[in-house]
Amino acid sequence: MTVRVGVIGAGMIGQDHIRRLTDVVAGAQVTAVTDIDSGRAAETAVRVGARALPDGPALIAADDVDAVLVTSWGPTHAEHVLNAIAAGKPVLCEKPLATTAEDCLRIVDAECSYGRRLVQVGFMRRYDAGYRQLKGVLDGGTIGTPLMVHCAHRNPTVPDAYHSAMAAQDTAVHEIDVLRWLLGDEIVSAQVITPRATSRRFEHLKDPQIMLFETAQGVRIDLEVFVNCQYGYDIQCETVGETGLARLPDPAAVGIRTAGQHGSAVLQDWKDRFGDAFDTEFREWIASVEAGGEPTGPSAWDGYAATVITDATVRSLESGQQPVTVDMKPRPALHGGPA
Amino acid sequence: MTVRVGVIGAGMIGQDHIRRLTDVVAGAQVTAVTDIDSGRAAETAVRVGARALPDGPALIAADDVDAVLVTSWGPTHAEHVLNAIAAGKPVLCEKPLATTAEDCLRIVDAECSYGRRLVQVGFMRRYDAGYRQLKGVLDGGTIGTPLMVHCAHRNPTVPDAYHSAMAAQDTAVHEIDVLRWLLGDEIVSAQVITPRATSRRFEHLKDPQIMLFETAQGVRIDLEVFVNCQYGYDIQCETVGETGLARLPDPAAVGIRTAGQHGSAVLQDWKDRFGDAFDTEFREWIASVEAGGEPTGPSAWDGYAATVITDATVRSLESGQQPVTVDMKPRPALHGGPA
Amino acid sequence: MTVRVGVIGAGMIGQDHIRRLTDVVAGAQVTAVTDIDSGRAAETAVRVGARALPDGPALIAADDVDAVLVTSWGPTHAEHVLNAIAAGKPVLCEKPLATTAEDCLRIVDAECSYGRRLVQVGFMRRYDAGYRQLKGVLDGGTIGTPLMVHCAHRNPTVPDAYHSAMAAQDTAVHEIDVLRWLLGDEIVSAQVITPRATSRRFEHLKDPQIMLFETAQGVRIDLEVFVNCQYGYDIQCETVGETGLARLPDPAAVGIRTAGQHGSAVLQDWKDRFGDAFDTEFREWIASVEAGGEPTGPSAWDGYAATVITDATVRSLESGQQPVTVDMKPRPALHGGPA
Amino acid sequence: MTVRVGVIGAGMIGQDHIRRLTDVVAGAQVTAVTDIDSGRAAETAVRVGARALPDGPALIAADDVDAVLVTSWGPTHAEHVLNAIAAGKPVLCEKPLATTAEDCLRIVDAECSYGRRLVQVGFMRRYDAGYRQLKGVLDGGTIGTPLMVHCAHRNPTVPDAYHSAMAAQDTAVHEIDVLRWLLGDEIVSAQVITPRATSRRFEHLKDPQIMLFETAQGVRIDLEVFVNCQYGYDIQCETVGETGLARLPDPAAVGIRTAGQHGSAVLQDWKDRFGDAFDTEFREWIASVEAGGEPTGPSAWDGYAATVITDATVRSLESGQQPVTVDMKPRPALHGGPA
Repeated sequence: MTVRVGVIGAGMIGQDHIRRLTDVVAGAQVTAVTDIDSGRAAETAVRVGARALPDGPALIAADDVDAVLVTSWGPTHAEHVLNAIAAGKPVLCEKPLATTAEDCLRIVDAECSYGRRLVQVGFMRRYDAGYRQLKGVLDGGTIGTPLMVHCAHRNPTVPDAYHSAMAAQDTAVHEIDVLRWLLGDEIVSAQVITPRATSRRFEHLKDPQIMLFETAQGVRIDLEVFVNCQYGYDIQCETVGETGLARLPDPAAVGIRTAGQHGSAVLQDWKDRFGDAFDTEFREWIASVEAGGEPTGPSAWDGYAATVITDATVRSLESGQQPVTVDMKPRPALHGGPA
Repeated sequence: MTVRVGVIGAGMIGQDHIRRLTDVVAGAQVTAVTDIDSGRAAETAVRVGARALPDGPALIAADDVDAVLVTSWGPTHAEHVLNAIAAGKPVLCEKPLATTAEDCLRIVDAECSYGRRLVQVGFMRRYDAGYRQLKGVLDGGTIGTPLMVHCAHRNPTVPDAYHSAMAAQDTAVHEIDVLRWLLGDEIVSAQVITPRATSRRFEHLKDPQIMLFETAQGVRIDLEVFVNCQYGYDIQCETVGETGLARLPDPAAVGIRTAGQHGSAVLQDWKDRFGDAFDTEFREWIASVEAGGEPTGPSAWDGYAATVITDATVRSLESGQQPVTVDMKPRPALHGGPA
Repeated sequence: MTVRVGVIGAGMIGQDHIRRLTDVVAGAQVTAVTDIDSGRAAETAVRVGARALPDGPALIAADDVDAVLVTSWGPTHAEHVLNAIAAGKPVLCEKPLATTAEDCLRIVDAECSYGRRLVQVGFMRRYDAGYRQLKGVLDGGTIGTPLMVHCAHRNPTVPDAYHSAMAAQDTAVHEIDVLRWLLGDEIVSAQVITPRATSRRFEHLKDPQIMLFETAQGVRIDLEVFVNCQYGYDIQCETVGETGLARLPDPAAVGIRTAGQHGSAVLQDWKDRFGDAFDTEFREWIASVEAGGEPTGPSAWDGYAATVITDATVRSLESGQQPVTVDMKPRPALHGGPA
Repeated sequence: MTVRVGVIGAGMIGQDHIRRLTDVVAGAQVTAVTDIDSGRAAETAVRVGARALPDGPALIAADDVDAVLVTSWGPTHAEHVLNAIAAGKPVLCEKPLATTAEDCLRIVDAECSYGRRLVQVGFMRRYDAGYRQLKGVLDGGTIGTPLMVHCAHRNPTVPDAYHSAMAAQDTAVHEIDVLRWLLGDEIVSAQVITPRATSRRFEHLKDPQIMLFETAQGVRIDLEVFVNCQYGYDIQCETVGETGLARLPDPAAVGIRTAGQHGSAVLQDWKDRFGDAFDTEFREWIASVEAGGEPTGPSAWDGYAATVITDATVRSLESGQQPVTVDMKPRPALHGGPA
């Protein structure tokens, strides 16, 4: 069986995922596309042999759409996801699930009312081979009970539109999700402290930032977010447990010795770093849809949690860099909470 | 368009490739299967929604077979490949292309008579991300003209049926192909020298072996083949040029510090090491078939060359460990030889 | 000329330094020894051909003592160092310079009154080849203006007498000194946060601790102190600047592949990790004494600064884990302050 | 007790060792110097407070010379060493022990007649921390019985006077000695094969060379000697045994990430690579002299063996690149041979 996917939003990320569903992942087909720019939707649809539809509701309702992919502008996510739930169709929504915690919660509630999980959020790191190995090591007990995690998230540079709150909302949000999953633990407080800012970027941006998180189990996480580090795209994660530590591997790279240096290239682009993870994410999502089961990836609850935690992080940044308690609602039974 | 593939040979490798064509690679479908064990063919066909056909000729002739995959027993390869050429259908043949140089040459000749390339040989290393990076470094001139290559091919262990000549025929053949491609050069002589044999294996087996190759350009290659190295599956390749060296990366692995050791796991299975390479190999092969062009991977000529070179290597091993000249026919125009 | 050294304190560290001065460092001779245990002093003196003297003052006054090494119990350091200054003799004092900031300041004042530097404090990391390389990289501008430093100081285990304040006083004090020197910057605030404690150690000990420092230039330092990490003695230091990062190397170690693992041994003992640094420290100290100049190593002021900063760190630990401002006196002209 | 050393030969190496004996190694003093250039001897003597003596015999005979260091021109080594044996004085002779196997043998015989070992040859690699670690791993059985060794010896460049035979005589001789010691085994045949020569050096030089050795136990060694590799001074040694492999570590170096590269500096000079090994060599030699025992380092027999093996290597290079059997005399009882 081929899973027929309707795509809402044919921008840069949408196009990349359409290519992925068409050329990379077996068993999937893009059958419908919609976009706020109807010309772009039409062109895209022609190129991949799909139909262009006028809007999200039409696409979600279409008979030849088994599952929905939401890659439109963030503020529109909640509405599309709620519509998909109402239609009982599986939906993969790029992060963020919604731009406010309230909207995330509405989605969680809608899904609970529907009675089974339909929503997956596009946190792709859980599909990265390195993180999966790392989780295997943690779960296997090799390093004992985790106590601390040291992370770094570095981009070579960011566009002018990037503002200080985005360090949490757009950048650290990936670590927030993947660390909750790695540790099987919840983040209960967040704090930001700001080192001297790099002079390599516009003045108003607080870059780098150091984020400090505490989990329910008392694990302390420090995360360097440095989005104008100049040298490359570099993701580090070291987990320290009672009997040892485990470190996310750097991507395999040819070692070169020349001109007095031994070295290897550092990636420059997150799409190179996590391209395989995206492929795996879509492959497993399509498989779960085909199997007719619930999605196996990050849930609506995970999307809600990420939003609440990034909100707390931003609040710390903007209000004196003190620790801010994460105020999360009770976890519903559908999402592993008490029945 | 979906490429409809007929598979000849549903043994272990065949099954793995059928899974790959079905579950992993987009745009492909296995429509026909045959196997010397007709029951196995039937079961497999049912499982993937294909037809079981009585034999190779029937499969190659089938209307719903656009391209042929040969994964049967080595001695049968030549016949199936020649039949596919006669039928004008693209064929991907697992290594070896044929078990004798003469048969390889018959295939090369048949393809030349047909007038365009149809055959690809299943040397998957050319699709490994590490080797591709390495080729990029070599081609980019970073290390200057290559002068030497140091390689190792280590397996944790091999089955009892493995005999000394297989070190060249089954094991080193992968380095032989990938080095010809990496260097863009031809191997002109081969020699084997045998260190003290490991006591960890049956007595008649010469293991390890050190193979020495020389290329037309004077590059010297040393290759350790050690198929009972105990510790893991480990592929090493270091190319030394006039101004530097470049080394195939080890697979990315979580770094762990525990109990007085800093380390990471070594893979145990070639299928883990080259699984992604196989996926890429098939993805690109399917794409070339879909595009209606010639295959872009290892050619019949490459299959012939690998066989002639492994023959010379085995001859050196069996006749006093002296250098043996590789006696290769002139390269036909279809394969880049003089017109 | 041979520098004649008198040693106050012949305990474990004292014995190691006596061996160093006798067997390792050229141009030095231990001529006098004193210890609170006069028997131990006598035995030691006999063994190395020195005189046993009754106490510090007698040793400092001795004609055949050109320079004084203080390796006695911490609370006695200040008195011996002050006496050496009064006698106008160079003195190398193991850390801490004194157990209170007030005593450190008395030493700084005494030295200023004397008019030239006589005191060196035994912070050996400045003599470690790796830290020196790292300082070369920082000073050379390779990574631009430093913005952050991520450090870890891990011991496999500590004795029962170790208490929570010692994490700053005995352990982190090495990072505090070496980071001030690496960055050429002053630490102006300190904070401790405590992750979930390891269960592998006695209950009252807060281990691990995460220390956060801020410098006058706004550099943010995070330092994991984990003194029961089980797996080994491991020192990490990564400096992140505006254009890159530089990382303290791990000690060179044989790489081993066996039994499915690629790895190398982690050191277990700080004496193995910093043995060469101690040798260099003493070699350079002896050379400075022989040359008749001022010591080139960590000064009394550095000893004072380290004490004030560790005091602030302990205060943060013991009083709610809030940031504590480091309250340092003005730097005197003799130590690079304003004239 | 201070060991009083007389130095024959005050050229570049001699000066470096005089500095070492004076400034670095405790318990040693250079008391006499001679050189073919008497002015240089006089200047050097004044500088370090020694006497300048007219020639080797006078220096060896001097009452204030306990031990002799020979760092003169290679062809003069044998005479000085024989004289030192005749005088019953310990002698450390820089490599080569003598320029011919015959002269080496005369030294071995003279020492045997004298009845105890006096001679140490200056092969410093046995004192390198990395090689010592590697020997510990081999002797500890971690990788099982050794079967193969893969080595490389690379220099960034060499002076014009360097000729093809020196690749064995001056360069590979270090591996020849250290491998005999590492493996506790004897080299019984040698062969050289020559890759395409680098264009970065004068035409008559065969560079690189690949040397193949076989030991009495059947271990196969391949050694790349590449003395104009451009990029740095780089020593590699990987030993493969029945159950694993062990690799000489690269020197510890600060890891740097900047401008799209992760890397570290490669050393350029053998004196940086083996400076610590020289220090240890001299420290242990002085200690053995002071203790009145036999030297613990490479013996006259080791010097003889190295010369015989390099002779065989050169013979292979110059006569068709065939394997050449190493023709070594029976090992005398003084050097571990049969009594």
